[in-house]
Amino acid sequence: MIGLDQIKDIARPTPSKIVLLVMDGLGGLPHPKTGKTELETAKTPNLDRLAKEGICGLVDTVGPGITPGSAPGHLALFGYDPLKFTVGRGVLEALGIDFELQEGDIAARGNFCTIDSSGLITDRRAGRIATAKCAELCHLLDGLKIEDVDLLVSPVREHRFVVVFRGPGLLSELSDSDPQREGMPPKDVVPLSAEAAKAAYIANQFIARARATLADHHPTNMVLVRGFAHYPHFPKMSEVFKLKPAAIASYPMYRGLAKVVGMEVLATGPSIEAELATLAQHYDSYDFFLLHVKEIDLAGEDGDFERKAEIIEKVDAALPRLISLNPDVIIVTADHSTPALLKGHSWHPVPFLLRSNWCRPDQVQEFSEKACSLGSLGRFPGTQVMPLALANALKLGKFGA
Amino acid sequence: MIGLDQIKDIARPTPSKIVLLVMDGLGGLPHPKTGKTELETAKTPNLDRLAKEGICGLVDTVGPGITPGSAPGHLALFGYDPLKFTVGRGVLEALGIDFELQEGDIAARGNFCTIDSSGLITDRRAGRIATAKCAELCHLLDGLKIEDVDLLVSPVREHRFVVVFRGPGLLSELSDSDPQREGMPPKDVVPLSAEAAKAAYIANQFIARARATLADHHPTNMVLVRGFAHYPHFPKMSEVFKLKPAAIASYPMYRGLAKVVGMEVLATGPSIEAELATLAQHYDSYDFFLLHVKEIDLAGEDGDFERKAEIIEKVDAALPRLISLNPDVIIVTADHSTPALLKGHSWHPVPFLLRSNWCRPDQVQEFSEKACSLGSLGRFPGTQVMPLALANALKLGKFGA
Repeated sequence: MIGLDQIKDIARPTPSKIVLLVMDGLGGLPHPKTGKTELETAKTPNLDRLAKEGICGLVDTVGPGITPGSAPGHLALFGYDPLKFTVGRGVLEALGIDFELQEGDIAARGNFCTIDSSGLITDRRAGRIATAKCAELCHLLDGLKIEDVDLLVSPVREHRFVVVFRGPGLLSELSDSDPQREGMPPKDVVPLSAEAAKAAYIANQFIARARATLADHHPTNMVLVRGFAHYPHFPKMSEVFKLKPAAIASYPMYRGLAKVVGMEVLATGPSIEAELATLAQHYDSYDFFLLHVKEIDLAGEDGDFERKAEIIEKVDAALPRLISLNPDVIIVTADHSTPALLKGHSWHPVPFLLRSNWCRPDQVQEFSEKACSLGSLGRFPGTQVMPLALANALKLGKFGA
Repeated sequence: MIGLDQIKDIARPTPSKIVLLVMDGLGGLPHPKTGKTELETAKTPNLDRLAKEGICGLVDTVGPGITPGSAPGHLALFGYDPLKFTVGRGVLEALGIDFELQEGDIAARGNFCTIDSSGLITDRRAGRIATAKCAELCHLLDGLKIEDVDLLVSPVREHRFVVVFRGPGLLSELSDSDPQREGMPPKDVVPLSAEAAKAAYIANQFIARARATLADHHPTNMVLVRGFAHYPHFPKMSEVFKLKPAAIASYPMYRGLAKVVGMEVLATGPSIEAELATLAQHYDSYDFFLLHVKEIDLAGEDGDFERKAEIIEKVDAALPRLISLNPDVIIVTADHSTPALLKGHSWHPVPFLLRSNWCRPDQVQEFSEKACSLGSLGRFPGTQVMPLALANALKLGKFGA
């Protein structure tokens, strides 16, 4: 498989434009009554037209049999091998609340919890306190300084928060303080490498200070932290692919992932129509656009087959605005499947279509899992999406003499 | 993916014969008026018969989205991972004029150019001098000796030549002297590793001597060199695949590439009929034959859709002679696509057929890009061609106990 270094050598900037529409969780499983998936149930004349004019296939974003988390699924589509380029839990949590991480930061996921008088955990979630209460408590802890490290504490939802450590010399190779069980005391944070000793010291100091601060806030009288991770330093899409990329996404985590690979994040509204308006508005200023639609995945996670099909129809109905911009390359696919029948992410490959003036159309006549399985792209890994996108936009020179 | 070391362990010599017909640049794009590619336009009853009797697929010789140069495209078909086995510009240039490179040689591409009295380049191509003039000037430089290194200078075409450095201890990790722009002086050749210091010294001496020799030959009064490369040392097909391989190709570069992997190069004429006569003549002496047809690619590069289709028909018409030899395995494919519409190499996967007594025929009824996209081989990388060829010739033992 060709690597980023080799792509970098042959990629060249051109005025041609690529739009990558990620319909999050698009792939599904057939409904037992109809034998049709959510996508096959939805009426999608515009997607069908694109599939007919383009080339199709099925993508294993991470690998056959592998159910991708949100980060690996997207990173693969962005051209980054998700087995090599990893984003830790704490960082994802921070990206998910639009927290502006900086290089050198380490982040961890936190829980407010309850301990008894002997220090044993009696409730890992402190009774799932209200989000407003969580914000109030975070405010008490936010802005602490321990030696030369700033502690930034932000609420997520209910008992969950994010803590970011900002300062010199911090490594994220740290064990969790959360024992993941009740009836035990919180654990000390242990450095997993010699260089992480400072970060471990700061983390344990933070936990001690939090305990002191929360002492009279029963039942929320302690914190548990886990998933320490550093903000990753990935090569930027502008360097590797010679693109000027922009992301249009209404959910924070996807904006955060887009930033990690160097996309400019554009302000947009929560609907596909708002996203397409944003695309039209900024169309002249960038040559690569990520459009991310989250609601399909949410319906799948809820196990709501009909709603998932309806949202797919809604996205399809909005597509003429995208098509009328006439991008050199349009790609429609997903980061993973979220079959309503499984109520969660799954390993099933995702349908994929690419339309360009220079693709060699295959015999696929509609956009569906079944039809895509007969497409000329066959079944292929997610990391091949970007080379195909660039090639079809005439942005790749010859490899080798 | 299985590597050469593993193949080597299971390959075994047998009397069975494999013919690999490379129709250079075969893959195409549909004509806007007919919706058919060059191959789909041509009448190819013999290729269709082979496709029907065999198994088909689409090959990405280097990788999806990657436009292969001639060397990587062929090396992949010969079983050598083109991302790992690379051939430099200077060596390809030398192979392209049938120059007999030896192990240890380094070669570079040269331009005759014009400099002004202050040493700045005024024309990187010295007015594109005639090839005869180039030959005359090469003769002046050819055969110099600098210390223990022989300099061999040969004309290519117009202002282009090849210089080969032959002597002990030469490494090709050298920068170019060609600044690729006019209005600047030629650059010194700089060693890119400590071990390349000697080669850099010799190269700079060569350039100084050339300048002195050409002083009164205005406008051709200087040389520019670039693309230093060493003659590669690849494992031979006889060692890895236990084959006795021969190449039948009328263009020098392909004969050169065949030599690099240890094929015997047979003298032949320029037509497919001549190549097939050569095949018949030597049929008993080898067990693997590369047949290379260049003209299809040339028509594609010229953007001549009709001529490309006609040449494909002509090759097809000659095939009964090949089929009558009844090789155990016949493979027909290409090193890359050269769609007439793009007038150059492209990234589109190439059609592939393999016929043997032991293949498991699929439902493909004709040889075309569309039909091959539904073949049982699916879409697969070029390095899998040789294992498939060997297996179908019963030349591979079991892998593992």
